[in-house]
Amino acid sequence: MNFSIRSVAQDADSWWDLPTGTANTIADVPGVTVGHVTCLEGAARTGVTAVVPHDADLFRYPVPAGLAVLNGFGKSAGLLQLAELGRIETPILLTNTFGVAACTTALIRRAIEQNPDIGRSRATVNPLVLECNDGRVSDIQALAVTEAMADQAISAASPEFAQGTVGAGTGMRTFGFAGAIGSASRRVALTSGQEYVLGALVLSNFGRPGDLRVLGERIGTPETGRGDPADKGSVIIVYATDAPLDSRQLSRLSRRAGAALGRLGSYWGDQSGDIALAFSTANRLTIDSEVDAIERLGEARLDPFLLAALEAAEEAVLNGLYNAQPLTGYDGLQLPVLRNQLLPRKA
Amino acid sequence: MNFSIRSVAQDADSWWDLPTGTANTIADVPGVTVGHVTCLEGAARTGVTAVVPHDADLFRYPVPAGLAVLNGFGKSAGLLQLAELGRIETPILLTNTFGVAACTTALIRRAIEQNPDIGRSRATVNPLVLECNDGRVSDIQALAVTEAMADQAISAASPEFAQGTVGAGTGMRTFGFAGAIGSASRRVALTSGQEYVLGALVLSNFGRPGDLRVLGERIGTPETGRGDPADKGSVIIVYATDAPLDSRQLSRLSRRAGAALGRLGSYWGDQSGDIALAFSTANRLTIDSEVDAIERLGEARLDPFLLAALEAAEEAVLNGLYNAQPLTGYDGLQLPVLRNQLLPRKA
Amino acid sequence: MNFSIRSVAQDADSWWDLPTGTANTIADVPGVTVGHVTCLEGAARTGVTAVVPHDADLFRYPVPAGLAVLNGFGKSAGLLQLAELGRIETPILLTNTFGVAACTTALIRRAIEQNPDIGRSRATVNPLVLECNDGRVSDIQALAVTEAMADQAISAASPEFAQGTVGAGTGMRTFGFAGAIGSASRRVALTSGQEYVLGALVLSNFGRPGDLRVLGERIGTPETGRGDPADKGSVIIVYATDAPLDSRQLSRLSRRAGAALGRLGSYWGDQSGDIALAFSTANRLTIDSEVDAIERLGEARLDPFLLAALEAAEEAVLNGLYNAQPLTGYDGLQLPVLRNQLLPRKA
Amino acid sequence: MNFSIRSVAQDADSWWDLPTGTANTIADVPGVTVGHVTCLEGAARTGVTAVVPHDADLFRYPVPAGLAVLNGFGKSAGLLQLAELGRIETPILLTNTFGVAACTTALIRRAIEQNPDIGRSRATVNPLVLECNDGRVSDIQALAVTEAMADQAISAASPEFAQGTVGAGTGMRTFGFAGAIGSASRRVALTSGQEYVLGALVLSNFGRPGDLRVLGERIGTPETGRGDPADKGSVIIVYATDAPLDSRQLSRLSRRAGAALGRLGSYWGDQSGDIALAFSTANRLTIDSEVDAIERLGEARLDPFLLAALEAAEEAVLNGLYNAQPLTGYDGLQLPVLRNQLLPRKA
Repeated sequence: MNFSIRSVAQDADSWWDLPTGTANTIADVPGVTVGHVTCLEGAARTGVTAVVPHDADLFRYPVPAGLAVLNGFGKSAGLLQLAELGRIETPILLTNTFGVAACTTALIRRAIEQNPDIGRSRATVNPLVLECNDGRVSDIQALAVTEAMADQAISAASPEFAQGTVGAGTGMRTFGFAGAIGSASRRVALTSGQEYVLGALVLSNFGRPGDLRVLGERIGTPETGRGDPADKGSVIIVYATDAPLDSRQLSRLSRRAGAALGRLGSYWGDQSGDIALAFSTANRLTIDSEVDAIERLGEARLDPFLLAALEAAEEAVLNGLYNAQPLTGYDGLQLPVLRNQLLPRKA
Repeated sequence: MNFSIRSVAQDADSWWDLPTGTANTIADVPGVTVGHVTCLEGAARTGVTAVVPHDADLFRYPVPAGLAVLNGFGKSAGLLQLAELGRIETPILLTNTFGVAACTTALIRRAIEQNPDIGRSRATVNPLVLECNDGRVSDIQALAVTEAMADQAISAASPEFAQGTVGAGTGMRTFGFAGAIGSASRRVALTSGQEYVLGALVLSNFGRPGDLRVLGERIGTPETGRGDPADKGSVIIVYATDAPLDSRQLSRLSRRAGAALGRLGSYWGDQSGDIALAFSTANRLTIDSEVDAIERLGEARLDPFLLAALEAAEEAVLNGLYNAQPLTGYDGLQLPVLRNQLLPRKA
Repeated sequence: MNFSIRSVAQDADSWWDLPTGTANTIADVPGVTVGHVTCLEGAARTGVTAVVPHDADLFRYPVPAGLAVLNGFGKSAGLLQLAELGRIETPILLTNTFGVAACTTALIRRAIEQNPDIGRSRATVNPLVLECNDGRVSDIQALAVTEAMADQAISAASPEFAQGTVGAGTGMRTFGFAGAIGSASRRVALTSGQEYVLGALVLSNFGRPGDLRVLGERIGTPETGRGDPADKGSVIIVYATDAPLDSRQLSRLSRRAGAALGRLGSYWGDQSGDIALAFSTANRLTIDSEVDAIERLGEARLDPFLLAALEAAEEAVLNGLYNAQPLTGYDGLQLPVLRNQLLPRKA
Repeated sequence: MNFSIRSVAQDADSWWDLPTGTANTIADVPGVTVGHVTCLEGAARTGVTAVVPHDADLFRYPVPAGLAVLNGFGKSAGLLQLAELGRIETPILLTNTFGVAACTTALIRRAIEQNPDIGRSRATVNPLVLECNDGRVSDIQALAVTEAMADQAISAASPEFAQGTVGAGTGMRTFGFAGAIGSASRRVALTSGQEYVLGALVLSNFGRPGDLRVLGERIGTPETGRGDPADKGSVIIVYATDAPLDSRQLSRLSRRAGAALGRLGSYWGDQSGDIALAFSTANRLTIDSEVDAIERLGEARLDPFLLAALEAAEEAVLNGLYNAQPLTGYDGLQLPVLRNQLLPRKA
């Protein structure tokens, strides 16, 4: 069972305005599932996490998507074409920086298996893989991530999934603390009463030790003369929603992850790949249609979704840290665990 | 009556593939109109050209739009918000570089008159004004463009309009030749038989003397030791279509103006503001709606529209040059007129 | 005399890490000056603020610059060419949304006066004018900003300048509070001991009432069923530094204003033009040189400047609010003043 | 020995203005080398081509770089970080779409071998791999590209290299013709007499059959009712220069590849990844320096380089096609070879 800051911290309801979804995860968006594979063999403390937008063939039924590159120190695969076409056509894989190639190949093989015309009579598939560097905890030079792990993460995808020191989040470090994979969600109601949900899942590996702010309170003391003063490491934010946003609107929404990083204490470090992307399950596309009839949110109704994007990303990072478990790094490093330092404050 | 290269040049039908619209202008797109005001007072050889997407209140019923900045040496107004919101909410005004401010103010006053809540309970309006520098022919330092001229250009908008040395094109110079405002259109048929039209209107003021290519033939000899070797001046390309393209697709389409400039002989000069924008009349937006039902072209059907964008922009520039008239510049300069050098070649 | 949160608030030194410059304003960067004109005539509660990078002719000696469009709901002039050429060639003017045209024209006339070849043998000048909508406090439809006001603001530029309800900040509103223009600065030391300063000046007009966070504490209660729930209005952040950053680095730095807005409580609203730009005074360019010898900061040294950008923008907004004065809007509206609600807490 | 259109075609000197470099290849830029590995095993008709900016450790001594995404239907690795940091830190590898992962891994292993701190005390390395889909000629689903091939291509790098049906160009198809890898160069002299060279190397796999223009002449007849009407396939343009351009200027220059594609007959198809990048060897960076003294071209001197970029890319594509050899595709397909249809025309 995952901890949710929104449900355990005393101040949470005066800090955030919007209500959470049922599970307070990205899987509150109907059809979205998440799967993990964790690899602890040898010097590896790493893994793969898959976010699957729906259970049909994504190559034939892509979903509209947008992205925001807050700081482009990153080695993700698939973002160029996502930006051009405004859609996602494979599951989203998260892993460590040197695992991108293996995950890419796994997605290619999987897509070809489902669609034997790929790369022949059809164009090639666009694998979507995002990454952070877990090299402080895991022996990243071992290139431990395999194609098989990518496949297993996709196969494991389910509406219920673990947070914390798991999957791609296993060897991650955030503001000096252990972890992590985290998730959260927010509900948005329009004037008509129509209600939608927006969920976030983060792979969190950013922030200087001593810079974290939890609900506005700075945690720990900033180090003086510290050896590692930079905000390094990266953070990936994946948004899902069932509201009918198109790719341009989803890109606008993705950018708001930057406001969340600021609230958490980050200045988006020079060597941190801070990247957000968002998809909508409301209009499932087809690759061969001539003209599609689709629904699209009126632009002036976007504001509550932007607020939801801020709140969900902020809580997702905190939920990841609260659910992190102690883990000894490949070279003996022990990272502090946030939950040991900061007790839940609700009765 | 305007000359159309497509109808007069012998080689045109083997150079271009797609059929033209009825009038071979941007006004082949139903509802789109164009108006000019030409100012020849004193040392001024300038003007304003208005492209009006439809005859209703554009602030309340904006049209989806996209843009491409091929080279951003330009002082246009309104592109930042167009890129963010993907829509056009005023008529599009074309003028000289120092006339942007007057045209901007005219659009603001006009929008307020129609919508007294602008800037108060409503957000402000986003005036859309694009420009080229006509300072070689006109005394641009006189700041001759007025708010009244902007209003008149909008009022004069009609499906029938002149090309050549007229409106904003009066003092322009292209590859060393006089002019101009030009226009052209192409028809696109989908597999289903459904047919659309794409039109282009250009304000053309770019290219080195001696660099022009007409249907693949280089016109004139490049100057050696010439005093003005650079590709300066700018070109604005406005696309309209009745096909249901969304703002992202319209941005993709706009970029193809760059291929047309290349074919005409330009390398997109350092000091040339080369900017294209496109709008669709297929889905009229409303500013207060909650969720809109809209139509959108399947992405894989975009190719013929991209070809149409290349062909229409290329011919529009040439049509502008062919329709240009001799004009003596404010300091006595006489620019050559292309039609005198290059006779139509069809029987 | 301006209030500076950093010097008056008890918690400030544990919230921010970097030391301030001498005056804790943008004018701590040597050579940078700021001038205001405030217009309170009739229904106007508006003005113009000028930021002048150096006192020489900026057209002939431009400064390297970069920008970040956090949310492009804005009508600024000059950003397109700034992005392309990476430089600023006029003073930076801040004003209200409908005053951009008058300020643009004033900058054009001023540049022509200094350089009579502009628009003739030389290219045109790129006026840089940024804006927020002060229409809740001032009668923006009156178009009260004049060319003369723009000239006066530039002439008034000085290393010492007022903050709060002044100049372009006169009619602004931030998180429901009055104001404002604000400024702050941070010092950055490299390993070698070499020290630089980074300053920020903001025109602040953003944020939902009830969303402001001051040093992590939420100020006021979020309204329920409120009539104006959106984060509307815009914020302009101008950065200056004497460190040798090039235009790409200055663009990277500008983006960090987004982290500051997040910390202050904003989610970068749909209808808010949230725009940052930055310039460096370290390498003064010349427009005719063939090859320039310049200095450039090593990329890996950028981190403390990014932190400085976050801190300076955050404090600049707060300093603006703390220095705001009560003012009755054109329709009788009285905005709360932050200093009345939140007393300085240092001894 | 490679054919060079510039030296063999009668009309070439009246079509292009700038003189070529000595070898008329990208290796005219001192220090730049190119290596190929061609793979014809089984159903594979593919390979890897390496462009190496200099022979020192690129991770420690990166070169300034910029890029232009003309159409983002592509799966390249490394462009995100190249855009953010404006530099190249590995050799540039070109290969087929499904070979990107293997090339990425090879570059990672090679960088770690040279710099054992990568991913540990240092940040990770950014592998740069670009691709086109050779699936019409080669059995791309076989995933034939290996890490060893990538290493061999880099080891084979030399100032002298083959063009045509070789390396990554082996299975490519351009305007329906076989091939290819091509290269060309142009010399640029500034007013002072100082001379620089700009070279281009292309991996060319784009264009509709019947659309090619060679020096303004349309080659072949456009097909009617053809089964493959779209401009699919991709083209990668790599520019090198010894002129001191910074990353922003190199991005501006890269965009001009789009004008070249237009001149060749392309409209930048929907499913074509049309991507250009450029690097300069004039200022070798170091990753740990505090402040670098560098040289930078004055912006107003950029024009001849932009023209050179247009000319070099246009000729590079043609040189690739002229040097292509007949090759039977994995499924028996025989592509026409341009040189058989279009004889050199110089005496």
